[in-house]
Amino acid sequence: MAFKYLSNVPLAQARSQFLEVLISRGLCPESETIKTVEANHRIAAEAVYAHISAPHYNSCAMDGIALDASLTFGATETRPVTLQQGQFRWVNTGDPLPANCDAVVMVEDVIEAENGAVELFIAAVPWQHIRQIGEDIAQGDMIVPSYTEITPAIQGAMLAAGVLNLEVIKKPLVGVIPTGNELVSPQTDPQQGSIIEFNSTIIEGMLEDWGCESIVYPIVRDQQILISGAVRKAAEECDFVLLNAGSSAGKKDFSVDAIAQNGEVILHGVAIRPGKPVVLGATQRDAKVIPLVGLPGYPVSAILVMEEIVHPAMNLMLKKIDEEKPMVEATVSRRLTSSLKYLEFIRARIGNVNGKLVAIPLNRGAGVVSSFVKADGIIEVPQNTEGYEAGETVPVNLVRNLKDINKTLVITGSHDPLIDELIDLMKMKWPDSQVVSSHVGSLGGLMALKRGESHLGGTHLLDEETGEYNKSYVRRYFRDGGVRLISSVFRSQGLMVTKGNPLEIKSIADLARVNYVNRQKGSGTRILLDYLLKQNGLEPGQIKGYDREEITHTAVAAAVASGTADAGMGILAAAKIYDLDFIPLIWEQYDLLVSEKTLDHPEYIHLLEVLRSDAFAKRLEKLGGYRLNDPGEVIL
Amino acid sequence: MAFKYLSNVPLAQARSQFLEVLISRGLCPESETIKTVEANHRIAAEAVYAHISAPHYNSCAMDGIALDASLTFGATETRPVTLQQGQFRWVNTGDPLPANCDAVVMVEDVIEAENGAVELFIAAVPWQHIRQIGEDIAQGDMIVPSYTEITPAIQGAMLAAGVLNLEVIKKPLVGVIPTGNELVSPQTDPQQGSIIEFNSTIIEGMLEDWGCESIVYPIVRDQQILISGAVRKAAEECDFVLLNAGSSAGKKDFSVDAIAQNGEVILHGVAIRPGKPVVLGATQRDAKVIPLVGLPGYPVSAILVMEEIVHPAMNLMLKKIDEEKPMVEATVSRRLTSSLKYLEFIRARIGNVNGKLVAIPLNRGAGVVSSFVKADGIIEVPQNTEGYEAGETVPVNLVRNLKDINKTLVITGSHDPLIDELIDLMKMKWPDSQVVSSHVGSLGGLMALKRGESHLGGTHLLDEETGEYNKSYVRRYFRDGGVRLISSVFRSQGLMVTKGNPLEIKSIADLARVNYVNRQKGSGTRILLDYLLKQNGLEPGQIKGYDREEITHTAVAAAVASGTADAGMGILAAAKIYDLDFIPLIWEQYDLLVSEKTLDHPEYIHLLEVLRSDAFAKRLEKLGGYRLNDPGEVIL
Repeated sequence: MAFKYLSNVPLAQARSQFLEVLISRGLCPESETIKTVEANHRIAAEAVYAHISAPHYNSCAMDGIALDASLTFGATETRPVTLQQGQFRWVNTGDPLPANCDAVVMVEDVIEAENGAVELFIAAVPWQHIRQIGEDIAQGDMIVPSYTEITPAIQGAMLAAGVLNLEVIKKPLVGVIPTGNELVSPQTDPQQGSIIEFNSTIIEGMLEDWGCESIVYPIVRDQQILISGAVRKAAEECDFVLLNAGSSAGKKDFSVDAIAQNGEVILHGVAIRPGKPVVLGATQRDAKVIPLVGLPGYPVSAILVMEEIVHPAMNLMLKKIDEEKPMVEATVSRRLTSSLKYLEFIRARIGNVNGKLVAIPLNRGAGVVSSFVKADGIIEVPQNTEGYEAGETVPVNLVRNLKDINKTLVITGSHDPLIDELIDLMKMKWPDSQVVSSHVGSLGGLMALKRGESHLGGTHLLDEETGEYNKSYVRRYFRDGGVRLISSVFRSQGLMVTKGNPLEIKSIADLARVNYVNRQKGSGTRILLDYLLKQNGLEPGQIKGYDREEITHTAVAAAVASGTADAGMGILAAAKIYDLDFIPLIWEQYDLLVSEKTLDHPEYIHLLEVLRSDAFAKRLEKLGGYRLNDPGEVIL
Repeated sequence: MAFKYLSNVPLAQARSQFLEVLISRGLCPESETIKTVEANHRIAAEAVYAHISAPHYNSCAMDGIALDASLTFGATETRPVTLQQGQFRWVNTGDPLPANCDAVVMVEDVIEAENGAVELFIAAVPWQHIRQIGEDIAQGDMIVPSYTEITPAIQGAMLAAGVLNLEVIKKPLVGVIPTGNELVSPQTDPQQGSIIEFNSTIIEGMLEDWGCESIVYPIVRDQQILISGAVRKAAEECDFVLLNAGSSAGKKDFSVDAIAQNGEVILHGVAIRPGKPVVLGATQRDAKVIPLVGLPGYPVSAILVMEEIVHPAMNLMLKKIDEEKPMVEATVSRRLTSSLKYLEFIRARIGNVNGKLVAIPLNRGAGVVSSFVKADGIIEVPQNTEGYEAGETVPVNLVRNLKDINKTLVITGSHDPLIDELIDLMKMKWPDSQVVSSHVGSLGGLMALKRGESHLGGTHLLDEETGEYNKSYVRRYFRDGGVRLISSVFRSQGLMVTKGNPLEIKSIADLARVNYVNRQKGSGTRILLDYLLKQNGLEPGQIKGYDREEITHTAVAAAVASGTADAGMGILAAAKIYDLDFIPLIWEQYDLLVSEKTLDHPEYIHLLEVLRSDAFAKRLEKLGGYRLNDPGEVIL
């Protein structure tokens, strides 16, 4: 266990140290000969020269007659020249220029006379309407220099120039080794409760996109001897080995020993979060260096290490250039603290709200692969700094294109599945729709709108005094107006309880004797609970689990379904998904609060259209627990 | 022959007419179920929901001990809590949370005591260091809406959520039918003189890049019955048929009849150049519409019709969005006339010269596929307008990314293969090098530099009076300075004549009795010829072919090699490529003229480095006919 303690080297230093060692050991691209017709997107390993000219003969560029131009000199409108058979040749486009001819007259300018003769009223200019030999490409010309990525047009030019085969950079063959006792392959039908190994699929896809070949080896059990053996085998068969620590990232670190036993550990531990426990190593096969990388087990960590360290190494082998990601400045919607020890990568949603780019940080968890599904950009929070304050302008590396981001409608507010259904209906009707939604609760949505960080949000805030929804909150938070409250649905809120309701929960009063799971502060559902507790004369302190917070209805339902809680408040749709019993308590009003500046946003106009559609009504029916409430009408 | 005369419908109208007919006939995407692990880059045909939560159990997020947090309440630095065996469980990251536990304390915070007991100096917070069920994705959540392009991260999220298969848009199968008597497949070894069919390779590559499948059918001879039969077969087997008129674009138009015989011709002829003779049609197979498109034969025409008309139709079938190409404003380097009848598409090089974007139009020929290799952008010259004047700012659709264009070193001037060799050596050393070169002759290069349209250019202009090269021209054209003349090589100029020199050409004087092929006005080689003619007492009018102009040494050599000329002036390297005899006349000085503003351009600094390198000297030796002349030294 030579590398028990992780080093904490800054990312840039770790990357260059790794690459320098690989280069010093002789890492370089290999090449292979392939057919030009199969070369799309491959990288030319050397300059490509034309074998023949294109065209490789003088070719008629028009239908008409070919002739010696000097025979027509002097021809005019009033004194045409007549050519007899034998003095010209009828030709079609593409025909080789007949011998002793140096011009083509197009058929429209040829008047046929008797006995096959023709009359011409304009003199021909030598070499007119002829594609001269080499017009496109001359033999010996360089078609493309070394390391050019081949496109279909380049393939065409090469074939035209007689280049039927060419030398391209060989795709590195990357061996991917998943490990972990608890994992099953995504290729086989998993049994109930088994954990699907999905990191390899992500890694394979990234490698494919970078231009590599890959083999995913069978999942290796967590035993040092098996893992070391898998690395040995892969190092014999592949050009690059990626050992993935499986989902059990923190378990005894087999990766570093497996790499040490098969070669050399260059570095173990990089000062990034997520991604810290990466192992960078290498071995030799004959005279060739084989990089060995131990990727962290959590998917977000693995993806970041792939991007930040593995990709540059692959680019060395592919003679590709590290692409700089486009960078923008955006206003960050909440405080991002800096870590003392790590450079932190935070995925974020980005939206353009009234001309201001806003970055909404996503869940930092290293296991939250869905954060990469939603991310429009990555914020790097440098280590040991002041971090970023909410409202501060920060640099963001974009992972989605800015044009789409600028079009995007940003929905921030209360969670309801109907928001996703609206987005889907928009996509179906206008496939270029751009909408993102974040769940921050009703009050969080109000605040985001107030700060100019969203276009609209769902809201269901009960006024305890009036029993009315939303209006009083809007009046209080937006004293100067500037927003509209748009009607959408009533939905059934209630208690989601274990199937069969073994604890016989019937009302709010019963919560005092069970394990509860709550929603986060500022969510309408939490406010509703507090209201109902008060009505029933209960204090939060009397409810076990009051402090356990989840941020969506489905997450609450999942907690109940898993048995870690007995009850939680939520909507019927969430209870149905998890097959829970549902004790309805109230029909609550779920509205949309939208900024006036959003009213002519093209995506908002589309959203209103689907909100009022029959298709949406059908989706609600399928979800269950909804009643339409004049969707799209302005309430306030 | 119902469609003998082509219509001349504007492009936008033709495209929407075609798409509307297809939609009215029911053109729509089809879907298929595939494995999630194979879905990278596919388009989801419907919204995808999570089958299970991820994680689907409460999972320990750290190595350490799991416990009931309430057991630790009150623990402080001074009053630790001691837990006995049985009150906690040792766990590893990823382990399911043991029953009756609601927190994990990480191993660093656990002090092991006697008899397996542990001491804790901080109270645990309920649910700390636990990845709660659904933390990443909750069962029933929408992972992506309809028509989302699947990425590796999305694959990961789907697998994590138990989605092992999904419904994606089926890739349309496109049948590509090449036609032409004179063509041979690029897959077989062509015989001397045969013409390689390369349009299909270009078309296939474009289809692949758009997300389609394709079949290329065998080349069909130019007979109506065979071509109609091929269309019939393809329409039975494919979702879309592309009939390519082969290289003989002007021949009897079989395409329109073949489409009429198998379905309906929607439109024949669009007001674009190149691309005019396109045929847009459709047929039905069962209840399904099969689009039938006759592509023009010339490759540039075919590519443009593919981009402008076929791509939007494919996007309908793929539920993809027509991507707007980024547009910039650039100064056009020469006059572009407008056509009365056609919208014209002109490929252009683009460079950023001292902050000004410059567009250098490329050869307009519809057969010049290499123009697509070199193009950075496309200029559209609207029909029946004033066209664009040289120096005017015009909109250009970019086909290369602007960041690369902005980095690019623009070389405009005399043609010499050494320029391409320099570019290749730069690429080999710095794969991200961005250099473009255009051949406009020495004087053309001077003028481009003067107009601020290039960074540098090769030049070999002989002063007839002093016998000196370049200096006097530079002094005359750049009275205010601002440029530097950089030494590079001497090269051997001479007469390239037919192998074996059957006409016994020995000197300039012999040109009066042979067929000559000249270089364009303003080229150093033309000026040299004029000088030598004068020395020999010859007038241009005495030289047959004096007016036949080619713009490169290799094109002149090709003309001689093809037998359409007996002699041309050029460099030894060009004669060698074409296996011509070479009669040396003079060692001329080939310098580089560079703007002073270019001196600190990073790519120019790289160019100077390779200009002075041994590798460059070796390349010159291989080309033959060069002597180094203090490369990189400043002459003026």
